Amino acid sequence: MIKAEILNIGDELLYGQVTNTNAQWLSTELDKIGIRVIRHTVVPDAEEAILEALQEAQNRADAILITGGLGPTKDDITKKTLCKFFNTQLVRHLEALRVVTEFFESRGREMLEINRQQADLPENATYIPNLKGTAPGMWFEKNGKVFVSMPGVPHEMQFLMQSYVLEHLQQFFKTPFIAHKMIKTVGIGESYLAKEIEEWENNLPSHIKLAYLPSFGMVRLRLTGSGTDKEQILKDIEAETQKLLPLIDKYVYGFDDDDLAIAVGKLLKSKNKTIALAESCTGGFLAHSFTQHAGSSEYLKGSLVAYSNDIKINILGVKAETIEKYGAVSEQTVLEMAYNIRKMFGADIGVATSGIAGPGGATPNKPVGTIWVAYSDENETKAKLYQLGNDRMVNIQVTTNLLLDWIRRKQGGRAK
Amino acid sequence: MIKAEILNIGDELLYGQVTNTNAQWLSTELDKIGIRVIRHTVVPDAEEAILEALQEAQNRADAILITGGLGPTKDDITKKTLCKFFNTQLVRHLEALRVVTEFFESRGREMLEINRQQADLPENATYIPNLKGTAPGMWFEKNGKVFVSMPGVPHEMQFLMQSYVLEHLQQFFKTPFIAHKMIKTVGIGESYLAKEIEEWENNLPSHIKLAYLPSFGMVRLRLTGSGTDKEQILKDIEAETQKLLPLIDKYVYGFDDDDLAIAVGKLLKSKNKTIALAESCTGGFLAHSFTQHAGSSEYLKGSLVAYSNDIKINILGVKAETIEKYGAVSEQTVLEMAYNIRKMFGADIGVATSGIAGPGGATPNKPVGTIWVAYSDENETKAKLYQLGNDRMVNIQVTTNLLLDWIRRKQGGRAK
Repeated sequence: MIKAEILNIGDELLYGQVTNTNAQWLSTELDKIGIRVIRHTVVPDAEEAILEALQEAQNRADAILITGGLGPTKDDITKKTLCKFFNTQLVRHLEALRVVTEFFESRGREMLEINRQQADLPENATYIPNLKGTAPGMWFEKNGKVFVSMPGVPHEMQFLMQSYVLEHLQQFFKTPFIAHKMIKTVGIGESYLAKEIEEWENNLPSHIKLAYLPSFGMVRLRLTGSGTDKEQILKDIEAETQKLLPLIDKYVYGFDDDDLAIAVGKLLKSKNKTIALAESCTGGFLAHSFTQHAGSSEYLKGSLVAYSNDIKINILGVKAETIEKYGAVSEQTVLEMAYNIRKMFGADIGVATSGIAGPGGATPNKPVGTIWVAYSDENETKAKLYQLGNDRMVNIQVTTNLLLDWIRRKQGGRAK
Repeated sequence: MIKAEILNIGDELLYGQVTNTNAQWLSTELDKIGIRVIRHTVVPDAEEAILEALQEAQNRADAILITGGLGPTKDDITKKTLCKFFNTQLVRHLEALRVVTEFFESRGREMLEINRQQADLPENATYIPNLKGTAPGMWFEKNGKVFVSMPGVPHEMQFLMQSYVLEHLQQFFKTPFIAHKMIKTVGIGESYLAKEIEEWENNLPSHIKLAYLPSFGMVRLRLTGSGTDKEQILKDIEAETQKLLPLIDKYVYGFDDDDLAIAVGKLLKSKNKTIALAESCTGGFLAHSFTQHAGSSEYLKGSLVAYSNDIKINILGVKAETIEKYGAVSEQTVLEMAYNIRKMFGADIGVATSGIAGPGGATPNKPVGTIWVAYSDENETKAKLYQLGNDRMVNIQVTTNLLLDWIRRKQGGRAK
């Protein structure tokens, strides 16, 4: 297995001013071509730290992918430090100079000496053209290992990877094959899931690994296979998936890049059904979970965020006596909300949420985390009670996922 | 200067399946208390790699903050590896067992043996209670250095940091005094802002630093003072803030932890005004920006996410001719939406959004990023047009911020 280390250089990352999206993007792309990323390292724009990291990385990894520190200003010292590391010197590269000059000319910008210096490369570097910016990429080989230095600006780095680096890495290392399968579940906790599939997990072949990735009431199961025989690995992963599915079928909403709201949307679309939402405690987040994805207008009629009792009664038509007698957070109220929104919006399905998201609003009988949800279609209108935790935002997200899961199960579980 | 290294453990990070937001969040918080982060390291859930990283980190840093690998399942090996590193063994911690048992009981969930094992801690660890999840935090001291192990789930890690770790790090290392003041602006770009305050910035005393932190149409200005004389630093930061404010007063919506939606909510409350929302392109996100914070029911009547034309016409009462003649994304439509929602919900203020968030939906005259917003109160109903970019989620967030800014200015700018 070819091993890679990602080395991101930049003070701004260590101050927390910028999220390190480059490490994630590079990891995903390397993973796809069967190169295993064994470490991410972030160091400051400081010679000693960069040299130390390069030294360590070459002892661990076969390919070292470096980003950052290639700008024209004094705080960018990656090129000089690479010269020191490879015991070489900067030389002006004529093709690089031509490309960077063209970059400035095509934008009608004046070129300064510090910009010309961007065409100075370590003598042992292979030049990688950067058509998206002014800092060229560099490819180095040393003792059978590869070092690649790229700018930290994400779209420039991505351009270099896609136009040159990925292809050259595959050629250089004649990489083995790696494949992943993600099985996405909702409505069951990590430890319960582990218990359901314990025997299957213990019998997994050694070239297939399992990981649990939990978040907000959902758990993703990731199967990873690696080896040289591509067909066999894909077959083995598929066979293990088929053994796994019957054990947990009702919890599985999708695979790989599937999103729960998108999966529910697809199900609704495939059944030609529309949905309307009446949100109290989720306060618009359930609607947002659908509408953040393009195409949601094909099944979502809309949402009424009925945040005050006034709106629940006067717009949504919940009976004033219901709220007076049982409270806004009650089975009776949430049932009326789901039924009424379906009728009001002329949708096939109506759903509703009402709960105490916290931190305030608790009563002796209704602690923070008391959440009612309801589902209504032409056949029935039903409610469910959940007792969640104390964190407002977590309660909103988990309520959304649990209700999406309910809608999903009502439509048959999974789009085929 | 006390140096810290952040060590994130998790295969999912190296496969690129999860963004490493923990490293950024931890960096920001450590920076605030004057601890310099000198490295981020990400390693897989593998004993050898974790041990190597711990060894290296203790040679470089004074504090090593570790996240991940504390779940109940077999792939989580951080605790066992820490035992090996510290040459100790796991012991069931009674207080930890009590807390995790309570966590399960309060949720009415059955507790399995693997959950009980979450209360097993290395014998030399100081227990850090985790009230947000089932994996406790751990604090270790060795040769004057501190190691902290926390779960990888962001809100659990953040809880441990804020309730325990940050304070104990300051005490342990007797860190110098550092103070920050965040001045939060909206409605002006970074470079224009820099121009407005250029002279003030050039005259800042050397012990006070300025940073620009832009995001989604907002720019935060952070003043940082450091030294030994706490009173003097606080006085100097306050004096500089008072010199700065008159230069940019109309763009400032708040300070420090102020959130734009909370700031707008406070203004509305102080003026005893209620608001109603009619959302098309923001699809519930504007409502969510209010309702994610407790107390929003005091000024927010509710929101109508009018995602289909059908709902815009039949529920919100936009004239069918208006949509037919001008389209749903138009000045005329958005004006009717804002006016009608105010009347329908009986609110003092009505606002509306309608736009092409992308990636689909563009027409020759209305490219992706064409966004109309409107504001209505008893005096007037007005609309504004923005031309934003191509990213759907960015467009939703920026639209929300621009509209919140408009509401804010209409109420006089800033709650005193």
